[in-house]
Amino acid sequence: MKNIAFIGAGIMGVPMAKNLIEAAYSLTMHSRTQSKAQPVIDAGGTWAQTPAQAAKDADVLITCVTDTPDVEKVLLGPAGVIETAREGLICIDMSTISPAATRKMGETLAAKGVTLIDAPISGGEIGAIEAKLSIMAGGPEDAFNKVKPIFQAMGRTITYCGPLGSGQTTKLVNQVMVIHTIMSISEGLAFAEAAGLDLETTLAATSGGAAGSHSLKVLGPKIIADDLKPSFMVDLQLKDLKLVMEYARQIKQTLPGTALAQQLMTALQAQGRGRDGTQALIDVIRQLGPNTK
Amino acid sequence: MKNIAFIGAGIMGVPMAKNLIEAAYSLTMHSRTQSKAQPVIDAGGTWAQTPAQAAKDADVLITCVTDTPDVEKVLLGPAGVIETAREGLICIDMSTISPAATRKMGETLAAKGVTLIDAPISGGEIGAIEAKLSIMAGGPEDAFNKVKPIFQAMGRTITYCGPLGSGQTTKLVNQVMVIHTIMSISEGLAFAEAAGLDLETTLAATSGGAAGSHSLKVLGPKIIADDLKPSFMVDLQLKDLKLVMEYARQIKQTLPGTALAQQLMTALQAQGRGRDGTQALIDVIRQLGPNTK
Repeated sequence: MKNIAFIGAGIMGVPMAKNLIEAAYSLTMHSRTQSKAQPVIDAGGTWAQTPAQAAKDADVLITCVTDTPDVEKVLLGPAGVIETAREGLICIDMSTISPAATRKMGETLAAKGVTLIDAPISGGEIGAIEAKLSIMAGGPEDAFNKVKPIFQAMGRTITYCGPLGSGQTTKLVNQVMVIHTIMSISEGLAFAEAAGLDLETTLAATSGGAAGSHSLKVLGPKIIADDLKPSFMVDLQLKDLKLVMEYARQIKQTLPGTALAQQLMTALQAQGRGRDGTQALIDVIRQLGPNTK
Repeated sequence: MKNIAFIGAGIMGVPMAKNLIEAAYSLTMHSRTQSKAQPVIDAGGTWAQTPAQAAKDADVLITCVTDTPDVEKVLLGPAGVIETAREGLICIDMSTISPAATRKMGETLAAKGVTLIDAPISGGEIGAIEAKLSIMAGGPEDAFNKVKPIFQAMGRTITYCGPLGSGQTTKLVNQVMVIHTIMSISEGLAFAEAAGLDLETTLAATSGGAAGSHSLKVLGPKIIADDLKPSFMVDLQLKDLKLVMEYARQIKQTLPGTALAQQLMTALQAQGRGRDGTQALIDVIRQLGPNTK
């Protein structure tokens, strides 16, 4: 398990690949845009022209791309992984995509002797850089155990969630919980502001108690500082919420609060703010009150 | 500031009064139901027949009752505090009630030389017992500073929030944020359950990361254990949300997520579950999915 192919040079993929090189893995890199992979090549990675070329000599192949069709294209499309994959290859998809599509791809790959593990991540760019990601993995447990050292080179909280698709489903649960905590600080702080409270005092009075959340601690001070830079972008949050609502429909679970949050966040995107951080949701609540911006 | 009168022997008031006796204050107690005050009398408190009698020799009078009309009755009603209050008395209302009504009572009391401080609390019965409450105070800052040692005998995070009413407003902000985190775990865990995930594994994978909240940490395990005992009761949460929505209307701030949560929590109350803990909200979400209980 020493030869790793890594597909995807986004803000998460680059530091993750660098951490694998740091941990003495031999790494071959491919991405849609070659220039984005340059920092990984500079750190000792080898460039591959296509996913198929990257997969050729790999023991493990990692995908960290954006959405379901991107993973399907990389794994199963023309010049895709399936064209050159050796029997016994373990593919790890660390993107956040559809659990149902994941299971379907797993079947297609299994017919070629390739094992798929889904292992989406949480923790943002800083988590990726510091190798402190939360990794939620699904798939055959023996394959998970084989690649666990690879996860440990990129993350801190590594959880085996169950059969293939369970990692993705757990990530979607995570995103349901996250969007409510973003609603929590958006409505809470917009209400405080409208009521004329000092926001720093409000934060000090509330963040250590029953109202506390990771979002309040991390994004609350950003809201007060008018800092809209993304820890996580509105566009990506909406991509994940689309996956949540699709899967919720498939399993017949209504999520009224998540649906409302999705609608309000969509307003932000419609206003051209898809690349702001999710804390910008407070501006939609402000628009529904006396402090319209 | 050694003679304290304490009105209200609820699950919060009793341990708070006992902590004041523990801190060597001389304490006179009154409550609607005398038997509930017995543990405080046993600990060294003196019983008073009416709020007026309790207030007679007090330097500081604390109210810790349920709702706005209760505080109005105790302070301004027949045999109320205002009948015997000495000039210079400081009243501290630690109930969660209307900020607007608080300001109005403050004016009435000021005309008699009595200062009102609003100082609602967060932290539940355990916080009260262990003297670890969060106290959010509003009123004249010099009066706040005079009674701060009294707060320190009952709480840990003591925040001066601004003029009279600011404590109540901050508490309402707190409750807005809390209800969203309860929605967060209700929709998140109901979704996980409907998707067939193991809830303990889901909790382990999510609670330390971006989805984390005080509610997830404290109420998540209770949900998994089917433990509906109240840390905070549905009836009281709804009382607080009514105050939130009333005040939000007064200041013209729409809170769509809080309004939705209020509606869903009302369904729980309508089903006769007002005395369950707020974590029972997950059952309303379950009713909207395949795992109807």
